[in-house]
Amino acid sequence: MTGGGDGELKLLGMWASPFVLRVKLALSFKGLSYAYVEEALFGSKSELLLKSNPVHNKVPVLIHNGKPVCESQIIVQYIDEVYTGTGPSLLPADPYERAMARFWATFIDDKLLASWVQASRGKTMEEKMERLKPTFAAIETLEAAFGQCSKGKPFFGGDSVGYLDVMLGGLVAWVHASRARHGLELFDASRSPLLNAWVERFSVLDETRAVLPDIDRLVEYAKIREAQAVDAN
Amino acid sequence: MTGGGDGELKLLGMWASPFVLRVKLALSFKGLSYAYVEEALFGSKSELLLKSNPVHNKVPVLIHNGKPVCESQIIVQYIDEVYTGTGPSLLPADPYERAMARFWATFIDDKLLASWVQASRGKTMEEKMERLKPTFAAIETLEAAFGQCSKGKPFFGGDSVGYLDVMLGGLVAWVHASRARHGLELFDASRSPLLNAWVERFSVLDETRAVLPDIDRLVEYAKIREAQAVDAN
Repeated sequence: MTGGGDGELKLLGMWASPFVLRVKLALSFKGLSYAYVEEALFGSKSELLLKSNPVHNKVPVLIHNGKPVCESQIIVQYIDEVYTGTGPSLLPADPYERAMARFWATFIDDKLLASWVQASRGKTMEEKMERLKPTFAAIETLEAAFGQCSKGKPFFGGDSVGYLDVMLGGLVAWVHASRARHGLELFDASRSPLLNAWVERFSVLDETRAVLPDIDRLVEYAKIREAQAVDAN
Repeated sequence: MTGGGDGELKLLGMWASPFVLRVKLALSFKGLSYAYVEEALFGSKSELLLKSNPVHNKVPVLIHNGKPVCESQIIVQYIDEVYTGTGPSLLPADPYERAMARFWATFIDDKLLASWVQASRGKTMEEKMERLKPTFAAIETLEAAFGQCSKGKPFFGGDSVGYLDVMLGGLVAWVHASRARHGLELFDASRSPLLNAWVERFSVLDETRAVLPDIDRLVEYAKIREAQAVDAN
């Protein structure tokens, strides 16, 4: 390790969270080792989490040498800026490309993921599909962005995985879980062929397989969460 | 200018927007000159805006050598990363402090500004005050963050204005407009004394005064916008 990159890393997470998965992916691609603390799925949050993220009380939190960093986009940028000499750079070197990567990361959160979460709370399959319309529209927009960012290469980051691959990569396990549970292809081969191929390409990388959760277990978890959400409607 | 910082800058804006004001403030503190294109308040959006920000169709857009950058947080980071040799650095040099600055910038947008906008759409003063409760809670949380970031110095950035000063600074004209219109003190001296003093300190800086809109004009604009929002309720 070089630069400011020495020291102890501890990740507070929850195994199924796409936001936590982003951080796990970033650490995996950077080749960094860390202690992992799993938050309880149900019941009260840990003292360590409440102390480390008093503003939002949410995972992921990365604790580096005792200092907590919160929110997946900010954590992944922090990892990349601190561990400059370790593993590949995730953010592009060029400021304009970096701005584009940040723009599309925000787009994924605000447009794609937000509507997908809303859809998962739909009571019936019909309601879910109706609520997925903006999700599919966002995926089509992101399909064009993939062409722009990757410049014909296999990843958003070009020849190797970068920031946006990790940001979207946090959702990949859920793409597989949607397919397994509902036969639903979110990154559909006809509407978003580039992203459809990207999902398969990203999923089989060693660094991805090392952190991706078991899909059957994710499907079981999704059933429990959706039942709770429907009850709360 | 040094680094990648040469070239033509054009800002697409709307004079009253706090997001546009952030970019104007960043350019002002960096001492950068630029062409400014005002979008029409009402009626259709310009071809240049639609072409430059096809995803969101929103100002601000900064066009640098013909290439558009969108969203105020991303634009200000871009300016700081491209014009490294011009004016002060806005983002902190230390990665952890940079992560904190990004965290609080997101907090300002998601918690403070979002609830404030909702409050402005309240039909009565009572409804507005009720909806302002989360805004005041966010300001009290930010008060503690100011102490953490400034380390007893006058600005979030320390001795000089930094990223978070510019992010919160975009709201300062609206703080003055709320006071002028409703006698409402958002950054109240008893609940948030540090931020209350910060508003006054930030407002009188030459670089701020150079870009801050006229408060009376802002009050008139707020009346028109709120009437429209109430109609649309």
